[in-house]
Amino acid sequence: MKELTDGAITTWVNGAASQFISAADRGLLYGDGVFETMHVRDGAARFLPLHLQRLAASCDRLAIEPLNLVQLTEEIHAATRQLGNGIAKLVVTRGTSTRRGYAAHGAAQPTRILSITDAVPRLAPTARVEFSSVTVSENPLLAGMKHLNRLENVLAQSSMTANTDEVLMCSADGAVVCGSMSNVFVVRPQRLLTPRIDRAGVAGIVRRVVMREAAALGWAMEETTLTRAQLLAADEVFLTNARIGVWPVGQLAGRALATGALTARLAAIVEAHHGSG
Amino acid sequence: MKELTDGAITTWVNGAASQFISAADRGLLYGDGVFETMHVRDGAARFLPLHLQRLAASCDRLAIEPLNLVQLTEEIHAATRQLGNGIAKLVVTRGTSTRRGYAAHGAAQPTRILSITDAVPRLAPTARVEFSSVTVSENPLLAGMKHLNRLENVLAQSSMTANTDEVLMCSADGAVVCGSMSNVFVVRPQRLLTPRIDRAGVAGIVRRVVMREAAALGWAMEETTLTRAQLLAADEVFLTNARIGVWPVGQLAGRALATGALTARLAAIVEAHHGSG
Repeated sequence: MKELTDGAITTWVNGAASQFISAADRGLLYGDGVFETMHVRDGAARFLPLHLQRLAASCDRLAIEPLNLVQLTEEIHAATRQLGNGIAKLVVTRGTSTRRGYAAHGAAQPTRILSITDAVPRLAPTARVEFSSVTVSENPLLAGMKHLNRLENVLAQSSMTANTDEVLMCSADGAVVCGSMSNVFVVRPQRLLTPRIDRAGVAGIVRRVVMREAAALGWAMEETTLTRAQLLAADEVFLTNARIGVWPVGQLAGRALATGALTARLAAIVEAHHGSG
Repeated sequence: MKELTDGAITTWVNGAASQFISAADRGLLYGDGVFETMHVRDGAARFLPLHLQRLAASCDRLAIEPLNLVQLTEEIHAATRQLGNGIAKLVVTRGTSTRRGYAAHGAAQPTRILSITDAVPRLAPTARVEFSSVTVSENPLLAGMKHLNRLENVLAQSSMTANTDEVLMCSADGAVVCGSMSNVFVVRPQRLLTPRIDRAGVAGIVRRVVMREAAALGWAMEETTLTRAQLLAADEVFLTNARIGVWPVGQLAGRALATGALTARLAAIVEAHHGSG
């Protein structure tokens, strides 16, 4: 999980090749922005329409000026064609304020920072998962968005031990919310469960695709409150994220889990998906 | 409150005059850092030792590499001497990672961004305060620190109406935590109350000075849980922040409040303080 190939990162700021942003950018000063991490395969960012849809919805919720999605799409296409395979990351901030202070009034145009790399983590085929002692704070106004306030994720990943691939994070009242970089699913007979994300957590793109595909396969999809005890009692668990797709959990809090039929099926569906929507 | 003089902002990054930081800085990518906003008077940052002490303590909590405080002090002195009067802001991030992802492993030296401006907001002598509908999320691991995850403050200030100077923010369970850019105090007979900051909120520098000075005046100082109802029933309330000092609340949720004797006394003490500790 931790070994990366040695690829360089290439970055564009507002469409121009650059490695720098203004030190007065609100993304730096307040985490006032959002981001998307996209899996690039065969020269294209997979699920790009879903990523751009989430990005635009988050900007709308945060009252960040709407982006020119046509221009942005062209910039991403140009970058990913050049990359071939790897990861593209897009950060959009509210821009550089003309005034000091938290208030967003007077913020200029959003800043868009696009970076690509062929450094893709080598993953174990199944994930070794533990529970993190770092809780996820709750705020309905921020829930679901992939915003730049990610200190909790940093703390959770930084305290991971070497033989752990991912940690699950809970809210203060003990509900499982997410992995530090993933969404989590529990498979039950004919039912697929995943945590609600209306108070905390990120509305992951592969999470969305998996929910749609599982429903198409005839499984009842439930966004619900999942306790730590329910996770510990589960027989089949998997994680999702844009880079990894569907990642079966092979070990949860020290207990071995097998990869079930639905997990394998969904992993294959996501892997084979052309990724255009 | 919103009118600023037209002063420019001068910025140094890692000690060198620069307006730019790396687009791969973790401060931008994750809000992975902390900041201090300091009031500069007569060429010196007031309460600088307290600011640096808080900064170092926060870096320690976040496992950000320790700063060279001697070097940092010299840089701040050089900048504030040049400024004379105004505001100095210091942002310290974990630096630029050599690897993608949330985990802090492999982060380089911290990035320090120092900026100064003579653009000081003109404040009304007393503050008109309302309650914000934006809640403050709770996480003991982040509480007290002036970290860069400040989207809630941005949302709270952005929704303030024109005739409001500050908004009070509550936790999800209704406890008053802080103002969007201040700490809050309630004066009772011989007791001074302020919200606990062990689950949310910032350990403000002037908050700390006021607690010390009030105790020295013989007042009982209580860090406690304050409800919205207690605030609404209060006769004497004030706010604190590094830039403003002690700011009497003249209107709270539409009700007029007088500036009491303790508030005036503490305001004068903080204003007159040489600010060296």
